Amino acid sequence: MDATVGALAASLGGEVVGNPDLAITNALALSKSGPESITFLGDETKTRELINASAAAIFISRSRVEELTDELTAKHTFVIVEDALDAFIATLKQHRSERARPQIGISPQAFVAESATIGEGVNVFPGAYIGEQAVIGSNCDIHPGAYIGDGSTLANDVTIHANVVIYFDVTIGNRVIIHAGAVIGADGFGYRFRDGRFEKIPQLGTVQIHDDVEIGANTTIDRGMIGPTIIAQGTKIDNLVMIAHNCEIGKHNAFASQVGIAGSCTTGDYVRAGGQAGIGDHLNIGSGASLAASSGHHKDVPAGETWAGAPARRLDETIRIVMAQGKLPEMRSTVRSLEKQVAKLTAEIKQLTVNQSEAA
Amino acid sequence: MDATVGALAASLGGEVVGNPDLAITNALALSKSGPESITFLGDETKTRELINASAAAIFISRSRVEELTDELTAKHTFVIVEDALDAFIATLKQHRSERARPQIGISPQAFVAESATIGEGVNVFPGAYIGEQAVIGSNCDIHPGAYIGDGSTLANDVTIHANVVIYFDVTIGNRVIIHAGAVIGADGFGYRFRDGRFEKIPQLGTVQIHDDVEIGANTTIDRGMIGPTIIAQGTKIDNLVMIAHNCEIGKHNAFASQVGIAGSCTTGDYVRAGGQAGIGDHLNIGSGASLAASSGHHKDVPAGETWAGAPARRLDETIRIVMAQGKLPEMRSTVRSLEKQVAKLTAEIKQLTVNQSEAA
Amino acid sequence: MDATVGALAASLGGEVVGNPDLAITNALALSKSGPESITFLGDETKTRELINASAAAIFISRSRVEELTDELTAKHTFVIVEDALDAFIATLKQHRSERARPQIGISPQAFVAESATIGEGVNVFPGAYIGEQAVIGSNCDIHPGAYIGDGSTLANDVTIHANVVIYFDVTIGNRVIIHAGAVIGADGFGYRFRDGRFEKIPQLGTVQIHDDVEIGANTTIDRGMIGPTIIAQGTKIDNLVMIAHNCEIGKHNAFASQVGIAGSCTTGDYVRAGGQAGIGDHLNIGSGASLAASSGHHKDVPAGETWAGAPARRLDETIRIVMAQGKLPEMRSTVRSLEKQVAKLTAEIKQLTVNQSEAA
Repeated sequence: MDATVGALAASLGGEVVGNPDLAITNALALSKSGPESITFLGDETKTRELINASAAAIFISRSRVEELTDELTAKHTFVIVEDALDAFIATLKQHRSERARPQIGISPQAFVAESATIGEGVNVFPGAYIGEQAVIGSNCDIHPGAYIGDGSTLANDVTIHANVVIYFDVTIGNRVIIHAGAVIGADGFGYRFRDGRFEKIPQLGTVQIHDDVEIGANTTIDRGMIGPTIIAQGTKIDNLVMIAHNCEIGKHNAFASQVGIAGSCTTGDYVRAGGQAGIGDHLNIGSGASLAASSGHHKDVPAGETWAGAPARRLDETIRIVMAQGKLPEMRSTVRSLEKQVAKLTAEIKQLTVNQSEAA
Repeated sequence: MDATVGALAASLGGEVVGNPDLAITNALALSKSGPESITFLGDETKTRELINASAAAIFISRSRVEELTDELTAKHTFVIVEDALDAFIATLKQHRSERARPQIGISPQAFVAESATIGEGVNVFPGAYIGEQAVIGSNCDIHPGAYIGDGSTLANDVTIHANVVIYFDVTIGNRVIIHAGAVIGADGFGYRFRDGRFEKIPQLGTVQIHDDVEIGANTTIDRGMIGPTIIAQGTKIDNLVMIAHNCEIGKHNAFASQVGIAGSCTTGDYVRAGGQAGIGDHLNIGSGASLAASSGHHKDVPAGETWAGAPARRLDETIRIVMAQGKLPEMRSTVRSLEKQVAKLTAEIKQLTVNQSEAA
Repeated sequence: MDATVGALAASLGGEVVGNPDLAITNALALSKSGPESITFLGDETKTRELINASAAAIFISRSRVEELTDELTAKHTFVIVEDALDAFIATLKQHRSERARPQIGISPQAFVAESATIGEGVNVFPGAYIGEQAVIGSNCDIHPGAYIGDGSTLANDVTIHANVVIYFDVTIGNRVIIHAGAVIGADGFGYRFRDGRFEKIPQLGTVQIHDDVEIGANTTIDRGMIGPTIIAQGTKIDNLVMIAHNCEIGKHNAFASQVGIAGSCTTGDYVRAGGQAGIGDHLNIGSGASLAASSGHHKDVPAGETWAGAPARRLDETIRIVMAQGKLPEMRSTVRSLEKQVAKLTAEIKQLTVNQSEAA
């Protein structure tokens, strides 16, 4: 990517504010930017953070042009575009020569059961395994070492990364991406305690992953005991997350890494959970609720609320408690001092009373 | 599964209370039940929860028949059986055509070292790897991509799911089930800090998994430094659990997902740990102890006790503390108010004392 | 390993204090030691813990000889060596016949892309996959089922255990060890919320793992969005750890299992984190800082400090707060009692004042 700011702007339909002749040889994040690089003003970045940027030029979204000050335009060259991040990513992709999706078809080093159905344009890489009666839609990639169990069904444009394991009878929607090492459909953790030992309860349900879900590396989603565990459309799940049997996760949820959701929970739509949040079994998390990182839940969370802490409470309550906790050692000595003062006052009053009655 | 309640009851040796002619086309969980479905009264379900069930019929265990009220029998048809869950599962299995265990023997697409010993009735699926001197007992399933290291030994009827990794010299007991992606016998996290860097301490021990243990997907159990890490008979471990080197886990423990147990811990029998519980190194958790979800332990837990919180304390203490924490902000303002009142009282008493001495 | 203490000491250049004719048939940890076994005094073990050891003999480092008391030498035979642990491990290795590193070259059951470069002395085991333009340095082991993505580069003497997944364009330094099931270079968890759904932000960066890093089983390290996620030299990472996109981890850090580090964090050198510690995004953890097990961080941690708790604070503050929390229920009743006492005093003073003014 050797270009001028002007050429870059032209190729992206952008407008230059500043010097169009600056040379651009790299696209870098704001904090890493240097001479001859272009960067961008991210949605969550404030324009005043740009003042010390050492980038040659900066993409800015048209909707934020009014935030540009004379100080900023004096110091930097800007490229006004429809969307700064989109323009930056397009530039980055020009710079990094991305590999085209290969078209290898079914590798002779893969195993595909005779009764499996493979759609058009599918890649099944060496070492992948596709079981009996499995159905793979069109344009799916089944990467090396991935395992698709008997009777499992993938819709179209699904990406199954290396060493993913999908047990039997799981259904996967369109455009789903499952990252390496994730395990979908292992047995739920269900036992009865009888005669001094745990007796396994057969886990006869399955898992349904709906369209546009993305699942992170080494995440595990267990099959239901009777019915399906469900991950509804558009939900995004980070790495090392646990979703236990019988859960029904709503649409467009986002769970950060190491979140754990125990059995038979339900969530509404647009629920968010921060890293390492834990949700006890049989709970309902209402639509639009947010669970803070590290929070531990053993109560339902009403729709739209943000909860934090362990045990979790409404965020405002938790903040008040945490603030008060910080003052606890001080408060403890205040209470001790109050005890002494009150004892002293009690003695003094007693004396005053005695004096008064003697005087009377 | 198209049958009448009467036919179903007859096939399971059950007794119908209500209408034996109702048609049954499905077996569903209580909360999902609908017309033409049969459900069951689970061990942890109360009979009053049945009143709004929309199932055609309900399995109930003989031991709970006395809980049936006239209201319930007026509304629903019941099938009295020895064990409601067992009957329900039997019905479910009739409904879902389970696949028979395949008999593929040793796949030509698997790797089996010449010095390995493979028992009778074993399946070694494509892409599985069995190392030198490994011993596989009879009727084991080694699923695709599973790795059995050199010198590791499996007893009989063991199920190793896809992409499990068992390092060298690990021993696995009878009827053990290890779910996909679990790693048994990786090096313990042992280093010496010398000359400004961490120097690896060789991990020369191994792992012993005893009979009837089940291990969840993507769980990791490290090999001991000198001796074995041990998981004793009947213990059940959920997904994404970490058991560090040198731990000796007792019999019939149950660990929910994302539990972490640091190095050299010991547990008695029948220990239970809720999701995400963390146990510091070199601790002992006594027999029958329960560790709450999200609890963080840095002290031994005596046998039979339930501990919760982080840092963990006895459950009753933790509950008192958590309740008091909820009142902390209020208590803080009470203390502030007390300070003011005491200051005022102090001043008033001072004045009273002055007045008194003047009057005297 | 059948030897006398004397022969063992001679082979290791050690000096016997006690009976050199004792027979040694085993090397065991202190807590497991028995007759005919040799054990060692570990760095963190106190000499008084040796008094009840049932080992025949004990290795002790020369630097700690002065700690030997008459009572100890009367009871046990010691072997003085340069370093007790080193001597013990050497003995253990004699005892356990370690397998030599095999020299299998490239297995015909592995997949190696034609454009890949494989160094001298490399083992590529059955079921391993090496992508286009990948470069494998000399003397590396790529174990069964491991996946090296297109364009990824391994330096020399690297060990990639079974079923590890390394996505494309990742670079791995010399002597790096990656344990089974770890995933390096999966997409960072990056989305924009637009039009009611999460839109994937392409993750165009990579991962750089520097020399002498060790990564535990089933750990995940995501690729950067724009630049690289970096793990600097000598850092050791335990199992099931999550390191999110854009993190830059310093040299010689040590992270225990289940630690989670959110996106764009930086750490200095010699940072340590206990099990299950969680670090929020965009934080900096200063050199030499220690994060306690189970701690939850949402603020930067200054260099050299130890922080604990959730939300985390300086260890001394956290200890004071935790101690005070233990006294909270008691303090709560003290405050209640103070309220009553103050109310009573207020009434008494009012009465005294009335009396006084009447008397005046």
